[in-house]
Amino acid sequence: MAGASVKPTPLLKDELDIVIPTIRNLDFLEMWRPFFEQYHLIIVQDGDPSKTIKVPEGFDYELYNRNDINRILGPKASCISFKDSACRCFGYMVSKKKYIFTIDDDCFVAKDPSDKDINALEQHIKNLLSPATPNFFNTLYDPYREGADFVRGYPFSLREGVPTAVSHGLWLNIPDYDAPTQLVKPRERNSRYVDAVLTIPKGTLFPMCGMNLAFNRELIGPAMYFGLMGDGQPIGRYDDMWAGWCVKVICDHLGWGVKTGLPYIWHSKASNPFVNLKKEYKGIFWQEDIIPFFQSVVLPKECTTVQKCYIELSKLVKEKLGPIDPYFLKLSEAMVTWIEAWDELNSAGGDSNGPAKK
Amino acid sequence: MAGASVKPTPLLKDELDIVIPTIRNLDFLEMWRPFFEQYHLIIVQDGDPSKTIKVPEGFDYELYNRNDINRILGPKASCISFKDSACRCFGYMVSKKKYIFTIDDDCFVAKDPSDKDINALEQHIKNLLSPATPNFFNTLYDPYREGADFVRGYPFSLREGVPTAVSHGLWLNIPDYDAPTQLVKPRERNSRYVDAVLTIPKGTLFPMCGMNLAFNRELIGPAMYFGLMGDGQPIGRYDDMWAGWCVKVICDHLGWGVKTGLPYIWHSKASNPFVNLKKEYKGIFWQEDIIPFFQSVVLPKECTTVQKCYIELSKLVKEKLGPIDPYFLKLSEAMVTWIEAWDELNSAGGDSNGPAKK
Repeated sequence: MAGASVKPTPLLKDELDIVIPTIRNLDFLEMWRPFFEQYHLIIVQDGDPSKTIKVPEGFDYELYNRNDINRILGPKASCISFKDSACRCFGYMVSKKKYIFTIDDDCFVAKDPSDKDINALEQHIKNLLSPATPNFFNTLYDPYREGADFVRGYPFSLREGVPTAVSHGLWLNIPDYDAPTQLVKPRERNSRYVDAVLTIPKGTLFPMCGMNLAFNRELIGPAMYFGLMGDGQPIGRYDDMWAGWCVKVICDHLGWGVKTGLPYIWHSKASNPFVNLKKEYKGIFWQEDIIPFFQSVVLPKECTTVQKCYIELSKLVKEKLGPIDPYFLKLSEAMVTWIEAWDELNSAGGDSNGPAKK
Repeated sequence: MAGASVKPTPLLKDELDIVIPTIRNLDFLEMWRPFFEQYHLIIVQDGDPSKTIKVPEGFDYELYNRNDINRILGPKASCISFKDSACRCFGYMVSKKKYIFTIDDDCFVAKDPSDKDINALEQHIKNLLSPATPNFFNTLYDPYREGADFVRGYPFSLREGVPTAVSHGLWLNIPDYDAPTQLVKPRERNSRYVDAVLTIPKGTLFPMCGMNLAFNRELIGPAMYFGLMGDGQPIGRYDDMWAGWCVKVICDHLGWGVKTGLPYIWHSKASNPFVNLKKEYKGIFWQEDIIPFFQSVVLPKECTTVQKCYIELSKLVKEKLGPIDPYFLKLSEAMVTWIEAWDELNSAGGDSNGPAKK
């Protein structure tokens, strides 16, 4: 029965990997130690491979730098961004686990209103293991939470819900603003703790942030491609947005849910708005065409797997967004390469060919 | 600039009416006195006209009983439910104000987490006066609230938002559950204060509850018809649901927003689940067809006013829902009668023909 369960949340120790782009901040892992130490970490280094990332004692991890990515993927490594945290999606690809949690190294443990440390991972697991409700809005938010349920007027046939593919967590302190908003509101901090998890309705797009994100890799993994950003690309800071648009359209098509809300992390510092503006400004124009594109995408019935959906989407990107800028032609090709690489690494006999395991 | 405004919320004393179905509880108005005393009340008595409703000193009100409704509407009074709180929609019709707030007499002033009395009306006014964002989901909820804004990746062209037609408030203590859920979870109480207001995305239906509801009557008033319930009808407790489905489809068509979330009221007592089950059970079946019907409704471009939309909807109800039960044929006719009566009372020379003014 919805809302009635009070059983403890499973840890999923052997079913979940934590993927982290370059760790520049030594405090980061120490702060998360009580929550992360029992999990396997996949660290993907975005910059100079000769620099060494120091991981404190006691963590179980594998670390990939650019040389590893090139060695493992060969020519297909071209689909993985360089000098940009978008490279983290390589970690999704080499993981063998069912679930992924990814977090940025400037995100710390937040406190709930009772001043208790928030176990972000536990809340993500709750979100992922309980169904989602994309087909009708429940005004008391997540009907599967303790103390909540479906309200009067919610159709009974929809109360089983659908599998949850994505759990999108939020940020206290520094909100995830674009450069123009950062510039206009340099002192704004998010101090509002909204005690809710909700399913983003079917047919509705949302801005997916990669700072504090978990997903069911077995369901939606092949669509979690963070695009071409950073070195040599005309755009940055749209890696997670791109993934979010693709993921949402595919989840809607395949009947899965995307949740947003809890858990919060503490986002410690704002990135430089001037640098951000340079990375973003093309995206700010382009998204005015990209959003209507994704809002109008209809995937054919034959697209019964994420891979098929994603390849179809790559064709539509080429056709509909290609005319905006040659970048989208390159991105469309990279989307195909990504799927090829994913399938290669994740086939029955697939092997990630010797990562730098600890 | 979104989120930057800290100006006080206008009272809208001369622009808002409070509509209350029969007041059976003498404490009700006393408890709300500090918040309601400066507003005009419209009380619509649902039962025996010979019974007198005692309104405490100091309130400015008009009271309508069944005899008044019959006298004012003549044969068109048939569209107003009898012996059911659905009759409240008569109050929307006779009001001359721009905004309506409607509340049930078992709803009291709730407290926020800091133990302060919640001024529900003030929050509804905030919700109604700020734009809504139905075309793209903002993960930090209402971008127009203090301390919030649009997040990275939110298209700039959509940041002006659209006019807000409806503000749907929530309930602490007794949640608004259907009879089966009441029976299964008799002790469940809602103690979760979710500090959020959000726009229900375009294309998404929701269960609108009439307990704590405000709307822009000039925008959406003619669609706020609470249907045929109570005495002589095969169904009850679907009055607000029916209005919510119609209103949402029309708001989506005309480009207006519907918000839900804050403010909370304290819902003091659960209605009898056995009585409720009797009222609801047909609705529980029927809604399985009604929801897909409303999800698939497409209003033609020519429907440029709420009235035109509503008449069109009445035709579709007759055609698509009529085959389920003759009740829907009657309802479809009542929808037309409602619009005729609305237009009659609200035309330039329209006059409510002498209500029992205080």
